[in-house]
Amino acid sequence: MKDLDAELSVRQLGEQSLLKRLQAFCPADLVGDDAAVLLTQPGKSLVVTTDVLVDGVHFSDRTTSPEDAGWRAAAANLSDLAAMGATPIGITVGLGLPGERAIAWVERLYQGLTDCLSRYNTVIVGGDVVRSPVTTVAITAFGQADPNRLIRRAAAQPGQAIVVTGMHGASRAGLELLLHPDQAQDLTPSDRDTLIRAHQHPIPRLDVLPLLFPPPLPPSTPSPIAGMDSSDGLADAILQICRASGVGARIDRHQIPIPAALPQWVGAKQAMKWALYGGEDFELVLCLPTDLAVKLVDQLDQSAMIGITTTQPDVWLVDASHTYPDERLSFEQGFQHFH
Amino acid sequence: MKDLDAELSVRQLGEQSLLKRLQAFCPADLVGDDAAVLLTQPGKSLVVTTDVLVDGVHFSDRTTSPEDAGWRAAAANLSDLAAMGATPIGITVGLGLPGERAIAWVERLYQGLTDCLSRYNTVIVGGDVVRSPVTTVAITAFGQADPNRLIRRAAAQPGQAIVVTGMHGASRAGLELLLHPDQAQDLTPSDRDTLIRAHQHPIPRLDVLPLLFPPPLPPSTPSPIAGMDSSDGLADAILQICRASGVGARIDRHQIPIPAALPQWVGAKQAMKWALYGGEDFELVLCLPTDLAVKLVDQLDQSAMIGITTTQPDVWLVDASHTYPDERLSFEQGFQHFH
Repeated sequence: MKDLDAELSVRQLGEQSLLKRLQAFCPADLVGDDAAVLLTQPGKSLVVTTDVLVDGVHFSDRTTSPEDAGWRAAAANLSDLAAMGATPIGITVGLGLPGERAIAWVERLYQGLTDCLSRYNTVIVGGDVVRSPVTTVAITAFGQADPNRLIRRAAAQPGQAIVVTGMHGASRAGLELLLHPDQAQDLTPSDRDTLIRAHQHPIPRLDVLPLLFPPPLPPSTPSPIAGMDSSDGLADAILQICRASGVGARIDRHQIPIPAALPQWVGAKQAMKWALYGGEDFELVLCLPTDLAVKLVDQLDQSAMIGITTTQPDVWLVDASHTYPDERLSFEQGFQHFH
Repeated sequence: MKDLDAELSVRQLGEQSLLKRLQAFCPADLVGDDAAVLLTQPGKSLVVTTDVLVDGVHFSDRTTSPEDAGWRAAAANLSDLAAMGATPIGITVGLGLPGERAIAWVERLYQGLTDCLSRYNTVIVGGDVVRSPVTTVAITAFGQADPNRLIRRAAAQPGQAIVVTGMHGASRAGLELLLHPDQAQDLTPSDRDTLIRAHQHPIPRLDVLPLLFPPPLPPSTPSPIAGMDSSDGLADAILQICRASGVGARIDRHQIPIPAALPQWVGAKQAMKWALYGGEDFELVLCLPTDLAVKLVDQLDQSAMIGITTTQPDVWLVDASHTYPDERLSFEQGFQHFH
């Protein structure tokens, strides 16, 4: 960005000129036609997901830099692909912008998007820029997956291990620190940074996919792994998988990986509430045969086997040490349980 | 829709419940996971395009029914696929909705989308519904194409025939009739209906694709056809193709297919202006070898060979009958020429 541009607005530059400028963030061979052309590998399924983010609802200049808004938007969509077992091919970005929005803001948003995408060898393949009274970012991400390595929500079987790929509660704690910076003076600077970063720079767990299916599967074998991501909360993910699969679960509360700083700061109960319901940790919640689960947890720092799937349909949060009574999790009651 | 629902708003139902209701418009096997899974044919390229439509900018309850807004949104995206030589696989729909927006409006929008899509064996494969101060519709469409049958903007060669697949100016005339219903009392009811329908229900020219490449091409042959759609106007399409390909063009003004009712109503000059600059006719503008062009025009009602590409880089509108002087078309001057 040039200094002269710092104050230039969308109205002054015009949507079409802005679109041309944003093409600098895209591979040159993909732009300039009515649509982008992508190569997919033979025999792979196409996996597609979409998200709309609205200024004041999903991000805000008061709490989020445009780079962070971009990173988070890209990460959320890549996480949805990872949760399906798909590796990303590209994303499209549809922008609605008020005339007074600074061009520099839009370029910083795109910088955040591409910073996240480039980490996973992915690119922006197309987009649209239009006038709108409210800044809106609509992202569609495409990936590809072996049809027999897809991770579906409805594929869990009773007796499988339930694995989470990392810490929960960190993103919600980071948000709390951003909203109330004077809180938690006892936290070390390093703990503070880690929690805030968990919120601002979530990492889509695409790194997990190569570890899931180490031996090549015969072509017609159905995937032995079910799951989804924990973007709407760990409890929600477990409940969604169980409902879709017609199974239940027993979750050992002490096995859920929670950053050590959390219970020290807000107490064990609140830390557990953030871990279960805080959301936006963007980890994978997987149901898989125990032998695969053991191998996976062995290779992934901070991952854990947190429970098992059951034939009876309820989801129980249990305590092997009997300090806490067993609690039945549900979509409706979940939150209230922890007040 | 049930009568009881007629007044139900997004706020009353909630975004998540609305999303579930909209899933009735999608194939059941595609919803319920973090992302949709689609099968593509081996050896095909994936083609992707995206559009954002904003209430008050691109559609309005004053002039557009929600069904028509949905049809037009789907048609515009399918036209972009047709313009690449791609057949559609599916679309995603991202919706931003104010709380007071009626659920019935949203379902009628979806009805319009699926009415258009089903005509081309295409479906809504996924979506997102979020709260927004302004109704926003973000559509991403994917298609597939043989890599050597892609229609690229930059692939035109000098000496090719320029073909348009149908009438131009009709959509702009239809808009005029919608904005000023008291105009053009001399038009027959049938002409009025045809022009209004051209604006409200544009037809993406996917029907043209099977006619373009009748003999199977050897796998490595590059596509002999360049082009794009005329959604931003016929003059814009010709200029874009010529600029991208480094060629010029001579267009015979008398060969441009214009509905006969237009010059009768607004005079020849204004009719030509609407044909060249009105936009939203969603026809294909193709550059191809003369023998293929002759065969194509032979098979397509209302299509026409309107000129040839040239080595010199300018685009000229010429008149074989010498009634009008030759005019050089340009992005900047185009409009003024015709005032």
